[in-house]
Amino acid sequence: MGVHKVYLEKLALFFQIRNLLFRQALAECLGTLILVMFGTGAVAQQVLSGGTHGMFLTVNFAFGFAATLGILVCGQISGGHLNPAVTFALCLLGRERWRKFPTFFLFQTIGAFFGAAIIFGMYYDALWDFPGCFNMTGTSETASIFATYPGKHLTIVNGFFDQVIGTAALIVCILAIVDPYNNPIPQGLEAFTVGFVVLVIGLSMGFNSGYAVNPARDFGPRVFSAMAGWGGDVFTFRNGWFLVPLCVPFIGSVVGVMVYQLMVGFHVEGEVRDRKAAAQEKERVRLTNVTTNNDHSKENNKEMQ
Amino acid sequence: MGVHKVYLEKLALFFQIRNLLFRQALAECLGTLILVMFGTGAVAQQVLSGGTHGMFLTVNFAFGFAATLGILVCGQISGGHLNPAVTFALCLLGRERWRKFPTFFLFQTIGAFFGAAIIFGMYYDALWDFPGCFNMTGTSETASIFATYPGKHLTIVNGFFDQVIGTAALIVCILAIVDPYNNPIPQGLEAFTVGFVVLVIGLSMGFNSGYAVNPARDFGPRVFSAMAGWGGDVFTFRNGWFLVPLCVPFIGSVVGVMVYQLMVGFHVEGEVRDRKAAAQEKERVRLTNVTTNNDHSKENNKEMQ
Amino acid sequence: MGVHKVYLEKLALFFQIRNLLFRQALAECLGTLILVMFGTGAVAQQVLSGGTHGMFLTVNFAFGFAATLGILVCGQISGGHLNPAVTFALCLLGRERWRKFPTFFLFQTIGAFFGAAIIFGMYYDALWDFPGCFNMTGTSETASIFATYPGKHLTIVNGFFDQVIGTAALIVCILAIVDPYNNPIPQGLEAFTVGFVVLVIGLSMGFNSGYAVNPARDFGPRVFSAMAGWGGDVFTFRNGWFLVPLCVPFIGSVVGVMVYQLMVGFHVEGEVRDRKAAAQEKERVRLTNVTTNNDHSKENNKEMQ
Amino acid sequence: MGVHKVYLEKLALFFQIRNLLFRQALAECLGTLILVMFGTGAVAQQVLSGGTHGMFLTVNFAFGFAATLGILVCGQISGGHLNPAVTFALCLLGRERWRKFPTFFLFQTIGAFFGAAIIFGMYYDALWDFPGCFNMTGTSETASIFATYPGKHLTIVNGFFDQVIGTAALIVCILAIVDPYNNPIPQGLEAFTVGFVVLVIGLSMGFNSGYAVNPARDFGPRVFSAMAGWGGDVFTFRNGWFLVPLCVPFIGSVVGVMVYQLMVGFHVEGEVRDRKAAAQEKERVRLTNVTTNNDHSKENNKEMQ
Repeated sequence: MGVHKVYLEKLALFFQIRNLLFRQALAECLGTLILVMFGTGAVAQQVLSGGTHGMFLTVNFAFGFAATLGILVCGQISGGHLNPAVTFALCLLGRERWRKFPTFFLFQTIGAFFGAAIIFGMYYDALWDFPGCFNMTGTSETASIFATYPGKHLTIVNGFFDQVIGTAALIVCILAIVDPYNNPIPQGLEAFTVGFVVLVIGLSMGFNSGYAVNPARDFGPRVFSAMAGWGGDVFTFRNGWFLVPLCVPFIGSVVGVMVYQLMVGFHVEGEVRDRKAAAQEKERVRLTNVTTNNDHSKENNKEMQ
Repeated sequence: MGVHKVYLEKLALFFQIRNLLFRQALAECLGTLILVMFGTGAVAQQVLSGGTHGMFLTVNFAFGFAATLGILVCGQISGGHLNPAVTFALCLLGRERWRKFPTFFLFQTIGAFFGAAIIFGMYYDALWDFPGCFNMTGTSETASIFATYPGKHLTIVNGFFDQVIGTAALIVCILAIVDPYNNPIPQGLEAFTVGFVVLVIGLSMGFNSGYAVNPARDFGPRVFSAMAGWGGDVFTFRNGWFLVPLCVPFIGSVVGVMVYQLMVGFHVEGEVRDRKAAAQEKERVRLTNVTTNNDHSKENNKEMQ
Repeated sequence: MGVHKVYLEKLALFFQIRNLLFRQALAECLGTLILVMFGTGAVAQQVLSGGTHGMFLTVNFAFGFAATLGILVCGQISGGHLNPAVTFALCLLGRERWRKFPTFFLFQTIGAFFGAAIIFGMYYDALWDFPGCFNMTGTSETASIFATYPGKHLTIVNGFFDQVIGTAALIVCILAIVDPYNNPIPQGLEAFTVGFVVLVIGLSMGFNSGYAVNPARDFGPRVFSAMAGWGGDVFTFRNGWFLVPLCVPFIGSVVGVMVYQLMVGFHVEGEVRDRKAAAQEKERVRLTNVTTNNDHSKENNKEMQ
Repeated sequence: MGVHKVYLEKLALFFQIRNLLFRQALAECLGTLILVMFGTGAVAQQVLSGGTHGMFLTVNFAFGFAATLGILVCGQISGGHLNPAVTFALCLLGRERWRKFPTFFLFQTIGAFFGAAIIFGMYYDALWDFPGCFNMTGTSETASIFATYPGKHLTIVNGFFDQVIGTAALIVCILAIVDPYNNPIPQGLEAFTVGFVVLVIGLSMGFNSGYAVNPARDFGPRVFSAMAGWGGDVFTFRNGWFLVPLCVPFIGSVVGVMVYQLMVGFHVEGEVRDRKAAAQEKERVRLTNVTTNNDHSKENNKEMQ
C-alpha cells in the first residue's frame, strides 16, 4: 500500500500541468467530449437500432443529462461552458477574458471530435450492419448521427432563425442561472439546471435541424464524419449548410445577451449597485457624524476636565 | 478590456429601470414568454413532425420544465407567477397587493403572445409544409399548437369542471410549496417543484382540453394565432370555448385556496401563532417574576445592609 | 387591504383545528387525495385516450411525482405517509404510536376515495364516450382506472408474493431514506426520493397487477368505483382479489422492516449507540480524573498555604 | 409501547454486527440487490408484457434510479459502489484498501444473484405464460432478462471495446462526482448524480450488448439464470461471451482512471497541494519573522527598562 501511494504521488507530480489556461482548456475538452459522446451515442443508438432502443425523446434526455455530466466534470476548473456560444456570451458581458475564447473554441471542438470518434468505434459493427451505412440522404441515412442536417422543409432563412432563436433561448436561461445578482438556485445545482435547459430546447426546438446551438458540438463531429467515411458531402450538403450551425449561434448569443440584460439583468445589477451606493453614502454620513461627535465629546471632555 | 467594461457600465446605467412594479412586470413577461415558447414549441414539434419528434409525454415534460426555467429567470424579481391564476390566489391570501394583479395579467399575456410568435417564426417553413396548415379542425389541425381546444367528447359543463379541478390542484400544490409556515423544501428548489406540479397535471389532466389552467398562457397565443392566419375561428370555436380557459381558472384558484387553507394552511399558521403567543405570555410572566425577584432581592439587600 | 387582512385572520381563527391527531389525519387525507387524484388521473388519461395521451410510463411518472407532491403537501404536519403500510412499518419500529395507525388508515382511505371521485368527475364525458364504459373485463375495460386488478397470467399465490415483494422494496427504500442514523440525503429532499422509489417500483414491478403496494390507494377508489357504476363486481372479481392489495402489503411491510434492519439498520443504530456509550465512559473517566485532580490541587493548595 | 421498545432494543443488540468490513459487505449486498432487482425487473416487465408495460427507455430509467436507490441504502456505510469496477477504480487510486476488493466483489455478486431471484419469483407466472419461456435465442427469448447478451451485429472485438468505453465513461463521471478536490455537487446528491450517469450510459451505449459495465450485476444473475432453468447455455453462448462483461470492465476502469487523472484529476489535486505548500511556506516565514520580532521587542523592552 505504501509503495502504491508513493508511486501514485510520483505520477501526480510528473503529469501535473501548472498553466491555468491549458488546464482549463483540457477540462473543457474532456467536458465537451462527454457531452458529444453521450449525445451522439444516443442518436446512434436510435438510428442504428431502427427505433427499438431509442426515440427522439431519449436523444433529448441524453443531450440534456450529458450536458449536466460534462459540466460536472469540468465546471470547477473551467466553468463548464462546453459551447463556444456560451464562452462568447460571457466574454461579451466581460465575465471572461476574450483571449479565452479562441482557446476554448479549439479545445471544445477537439473534445467534440474525439467524442464522435469514440461513438464511431463503439458502434462500428452496428454501422456496417445497418442498411444505410455511410448514406448521406434517404430514410436510412447515418450522417445525422454525428453532425446536424436541416429537415426537408427547412429553407436557409428559417434555418438561420432556428439557430438564432435556439441559441438565444439557451443563453437567456444560462445567464439567469449564473447571474451573480439574481442567483435563483442553490450553489452546485447549476449543472443540473443547464441540463434541463438543453433537454427542453431539444423537446421543443429540435424538429427543424436537430438543435445544434453549439458550434463545437456540430463542427467537431462533422469533421470526424468527413474523415471516417461520409466524405466531403458533409460540408457541401445544401450548399454549405454546415456554416449555419458553425456561425449563427454566435448571433443568437448576442441576441440572448441583449434580451436577458434588457429585461432582467441590467435592473437587478443596477439595484445592487444603487443599494451599495446608498450604503456607502449612509456610511459616509455616519462617519462624518462620528467625527463631529468626537469633536463634541472632546469638547465635553475638555469642559469636564 | 477596460474600454469594454466602461461601455458595458454605460449601457447598464442607460437601460436600468428603477420602477419596481415595471421591473417586476417585465420579468414576468420574460418568464411567461419562456414558458409559452418552450411549451407551444413542444406542441408544434409533436404536431408538425407527425409524431416522429414528439408525443404527448414530451409536451408534458416541456411545459413542466419550461415552467421551472421561466420561474428561475424571473423568480427573484417578481416571484415567478407566470400565471394570473397564481397571482390571483396570492392576492386572495393577502400575500401580494391587488394592484399587482392587472399589471401582471397584462404583461404575462404579452409575454405569452410573443412566446407564441417566436415559435410561429421558428416553425414557419414546417407549418407551410404541413398538410393541415392553418386548419382549425380535422386530424391534421394546427390551431391547438398555440391555444387549447376541447376534445370532441367534452361538454361545456365538464370543460368548466376540468379547468376548475386542474387549476385547484395546481394552486393547492403551489401553496404548499411556498407556504412560509409549512416550507417543506430547501430554499431555491421551488422552481423545480412547481415544474413537477405542471408536469404531473399534464400527465393526468391533459386529455380533456389540454390543461391550460393559465389564462395568460391560453389567451396570448390565441390572440396571436387569430392574427397569424387562423382567423376569428379561434374565438368562435364551440360557441366561445375560449372563455373557459380565460375565466374559469380564477374560480379554480378560489377553490384551491379554500381547500388548502381549510385542510392544512389555517392549522399550521394557527400553530405558529399559538406558539408565538405562548412564548410572549411566558416571556411576560418571566419578566414579571424577574421584576418581583428584583424587588425581593432589593429587600434582601436592604435586610442584609 | 386592511379589511381584507382582518377578514382573513377571522377566518383563520374560526377554522383553526387544535387537535394534533385530527390535524395530522386531515393532512394525510389531503396528501393521499393528491396522490390518488394524479395517479388514477394518469391511468384514466391513458385508458380513455386509447393510448394517444399516455402510456404505462406516464402512469409510472404520475404516481411517482404525485407521491412527491402528496408528501410535500402534508409532510411537515403528519410525516407524509400516504400509505397505511408505511404507517404500519413506522409503528413496528416504534417511531409512531400505534393509535395513529387506525386513524391514518381511515383518513388515507377517505382521501383516496375522494381523489378517485374527482377524476371520475373530471373524465365523466370521456368515460361515457369510451366504448368500454363501465366494463370490468375485455380489452376496453375501465375498472382498472380506479383500483388494481391482476393480469390474466397471475395466480393468487404469485399475486400474494407480488404484493409482498413490492411493498417490502418500498419499505426498505423508505426506511433507508428516513433512517435518523443513516440519513443519506439532504434535509428536504425526502419527498423527491420517495417519488423516485414509487416511480422505479412502477417501472419494474407494475406488470403483474398494477403495483398497488398501498391498501388505502387501492381500497378507497375501489369502494368509489363500486358506488359509481361498476358495481359489486369490483369486490367479487377473481374470488375476492381485492383482499390481496388490502391485506398483503402489511406482510410486505413486516418483511421490508426485517430486511432493512437486519442488513443495515441494526448496525448503524448500534454503532451510534456504541459511540455514545464510549463517549459517556470517556467523560466519566475524565470527570473522575478531574475530581481526583481537584483533590490533588486542593491538597497542593493546602500545602501552598 | 414500553414492552415494544424493550423488545426492539433486545433485537437490535442481538443482531448487531460489529465487524466493520462484514457490515460494509452486507450493505453492498443489499444495495446491489436493489440495483439488480429493480433493473432486471424493468427488463422482465418490458420483455414479458411484449412492450405494453415497458420499452428500452423504461429499462434505462429503472437502472438509473435503481442505482440511486441502491447507493442511498448503503452509501453511508460502505460508500455505495454496487459495482466491482468502481471498487477497483477506487483501490487503484488508493482511496480504498485492496483487501476490500474481493470481499465487495463477492457480496455484490451475491446481492445481484438474489435480486435476480426475487424478480424470477415475482414474474414466475408471467414467465410460464410467455411464448418464449426459457428460450436463449429468437425474438421471444427471455435469458436477456437476467444477464446481458451481445446483439447479432456485434463481434467479440467490438464487444470488448463496448465494455471498455462504457465502463471508462462511468468511471470518469463517478471520479468527477466524488473527487475531494473537485467536488462539483452539494453533499448528499452524489447518489442522484450517479443515477443520471447510469441512465445516460443506458440511453447512449445500450444497443450493442445491454450496457452491463458491472461484473457483479452481470455474473450474479447469469449464475442464477443457469440454475433457474436456462441451463449452461448462458455460459457457452457465443463461445463464452460471459467472460466479456465479467472481465473487461476492469480494463475500462483502468482506462477511466487514467483519462480522468490525466485530464482533470492530477491538476486539481496538484493545485491544492501547491497551495498548501505555499501556505506552509508563508506560515514558516511569518513564524520566523515573529520570532525575530519577538527578539526585537525583547530588546526594545530591555532598552525601555
